[in-house]
Amino acid sequence: MSLIVQKFGGTSVANSERINAVADRVKKYVDNGHQVVVVVSAMSGETNKLLKLISEVNSKPDPRESDVILSTGEQVTIGLTALAIQERGIKAKSYTGSQVKILTDNAHSKARIINIGTENIQKDLNNGFVLVIAGFQGADEQGNITTLGRGGSDTTAVAIAAALNADECQIYTDVDGIYTTDPRVVKNAKRLKSITFEEMLEMASLGSKVLQLRSVEFAGKYKVNLRVLSSFEEEGEGTIITYEEDHKMEDPIISGIAFNRDEAKVTVESIPDTPGIAYQILGPIADQNIDVDMIIQNIGHDGLNDFTFTVNTTELNKTLDILEAMKEKLGAKKIIGDPKVAKLSLVGVGMRSHVGVASKMFRTLSEEGINISTISTSEIKISILIEKESLDSAVQALHKAFNLDQ
Amino acid sequence: MSLIVQKFGGTSVANSERINAVADRVKKYVDNGHQVVVVVSAMSGETNKLLKLISEVNSKPDPRESDVILSTGEQVTIGLTALAIQERGIKAKSYTGSQVKILTDNAHSKARIINIGTENIQKDLNNGFVLVIAGFQGADEQGNITTLGRGGSDTTAVAIAAALNADECQIYTDVDGIYTTDPRVVKNAKRLKSITFEEMLEMASLGSKVLQLRSVEFAGKYKVNLRVLSSFEEEGEGTIITYEEDHKMEDPIISGIAFNRDEAKVTVESIPDTPGIAYQILGPIADQNIDVDMIIQNIGHDGLNDFTFTVNTTELNKTLDILEAMKEKLGAKKIIGDPKVAKLSLVGVGMRSHVGVASKMFRTLSEEGINISTISTSEIKISILIEKESLDSAVQALHKAFNLDQ
Repeated sequence: MSLIVQKFGGTSVANSERINAVADRVKKYVDNGHQVVVVVSAMSGETNKLLKLISEVNSKPDPRESDVILSTGEQVTIGLTALAIQERGIKAKSYTGSQVKILTDNAHSKARIINIGTENIQKDLNNGFVLVIAGFQGADEQGNITTLGRGGSDTTAVAIAAALNADECQIYTDVDGIYTTDPRVVKNAKRLKSITFEEMLEMASLGSKVLQLRSVEFAGKYKVNLRVLSSFEEEGEGTIITYEEDHKMEDPIISGIAFNRDEAKVTVESIPDTPGIAYQILGPIADQNIDVDMIIQNIGHDGLNDFTFTVNTTELNKTLDILEAMKEKLGAKKIIGDPKVAKLSLVGVGMRSHVGVASKMFRTLSEEGINISTISTSEIKISILIEKESLDSAVQALHKAFNLDQ
Repeated sequence: MSLIVQKFGGTSVANSERINAVADRVKKYVDNGHQVVVVVSAMSGETNKLLKLISEVNSKPDPRESDVILSTGEQVTIGLTALAIQERGIKAKSYTGSQVKILTDNAHSKARIINIGTENIQKDLNNGFVLVIAGFQGADEQGNITTLGRGGSDTTAVAIAAALNADECQIYTDVDGIYTTDPRVVKNAKRLKSITFEEMLEMASLGSKVLQLRSVEFAGKYKVNLRVLSSFEEEGEGTIITYEEDHKMEDPIISGIAFNRDEAKVTVESIPDTPGIAYQILGPIADQNIDVDMIIQNIGHDGLNDFTFTVNTTELNKTLDILEAMKEKLGAKKIIGDPKVAKLSLVGVGMRSHVGVASKMFRTLSEEGINISTISTSEIKISILIEKESLDSAVQALHKAFNLDQ
């Protein structure tokens, strides 16, 4: 008997028919003798419907109240899913984030999980219940309802799996696994049988929208066995996400190509090259809960330097406002925002033991006439910023050059 | 400065336009220096939408899970209403039933309020917040979400008003007050400026659907000043519900005519006329949370008696099943269920000091050729069961006979 956590996203619970399919899948696992904990998102479309209502009554909605409203999406799904499971003669019980209790900080709309109370759910598990838990939500110490932000249901599932010491955490999505790159851009992209946590972390943060970044961090930290599967297929192994130490020498050099069209480049030009300047720039941005992705700083000249980083395009204006207000204090010459960039990354743990990946990448792009504006590397990835309109051809050329379709 | 609790039902918060109108009304009271607590129901239509989803996944839904699902209706409304009030520059904060905390028993779908925690909400009130509280819901001691049943939002409003010692509890509905009878049956039915709690209690329990029975009980018990108003009119005094002791000799004899088409008559025929038989019959029915309304027992003959009571028609079959199972134990000859009855009641505190109300009532009906199957009286009302199809003409004849249209 294994304890399995299964997470179903919005499209997997989009209507009662899909919810019944989820219940059928749960029944199969229960019939095979497993204990099952189900984590569900809101029915797809619900969150947008609620966001529309919110916009009709308030132009700058208080995140506390938005969370109260948005969290109802999963609350409906947990009840319906529990009922669908009960209909199949299996004991089931729903839990909201507050009821679990999933304790978070109070950063409404992007809260982080601090702790998961397992006392109640462990007792119900021992008594033979299938638990159906609301993803994406929790409560702070005062009992205010919080949400973890879009995609946060994955994080809930992994955190629950970690807290209960589950044997496997299965993430059901509308794709059947992790691909070498987005099949919408490269037709013969291939499904990976396995990928390391580190690679997945880079893939997720760079825009492979299959898993949410924080869920992968959590899984790596607590050694949760994670598997991505399709909820639209009866069978299928999906992609398992493994620990790096399990990897072999014959790993492919490159596992995949990730990209993100939603990033904007921000450059603070000609600032004094003094210690602490990076913190002075990014501190106030982090304080506003704006996520910063790439950070690039080259060597300076004449005591001056340029500092570049990327944020989500939706937060570009807010970021520029913050920086403009600090411009004089920073002694910066100019603040530049560029929303027309796209990020592309080659990711692979095999990269470490192989020289020449970067030069091959740059040669390929040069042959395509694509200009690289910014480069940043880590041990297992090379990320570049290029013009948004060149992205598709860049991904296609690199996918071919690195034999990812083999 | 007064503390006013305002309750808005489903049609009063049916869409963002109506919610904005609620916020405008709240602002008017706040601008006049009042403290305001708002209690809201689910947007009209939402509950039925959720019930449909429930029926699509389970044929006999577990009430615990149904409550988890249905309670989201008000949770959406409290968030939206708080946001609409905030948009007008007023501090506002939403509370679910669990957050308040409104402690109930665990009779899911028809729970009763045991206690209302006022610590948090009193603090927010003192800090100048308008509170927006979810009606119809609470939580039991284990933190399971409960609902008070349809119409329970009125009860929440009155209970909150009592707990906070509010100056007035205003119930906004789609009618502008309490009428002498249903205007759909009698065209020239008149709005009452005031009605006593006792009369209202009789009116509510007998089917005047403006206020929910339990809310009136609560209001009377805790001496909460209750007023029924229309949310569709800018001005208007509505009907205030007063204490009996405030009443004068010149009160009209009859205040109104209530009726209910949703009752079914149950008769247990020829049971031994022994002490405790009534409890033996009704105990198991109460245990199943079936509400019993009229109870009639006449003197017996030859040690045998007939016992008659009414239940909601939707619970008739369940009631008959319970009784059939006990038939032998009770020593009853026959169990009869009749869903074709309607209940009609004359209500008025003035009735007490005037003889002849009953005889005038019976003469009027006799002249109309309407047969009375069952009679039951209290100090301030006379209730009868007649055939459903005679109900309208009976109400019209009595409304005229007792000069209620004057």
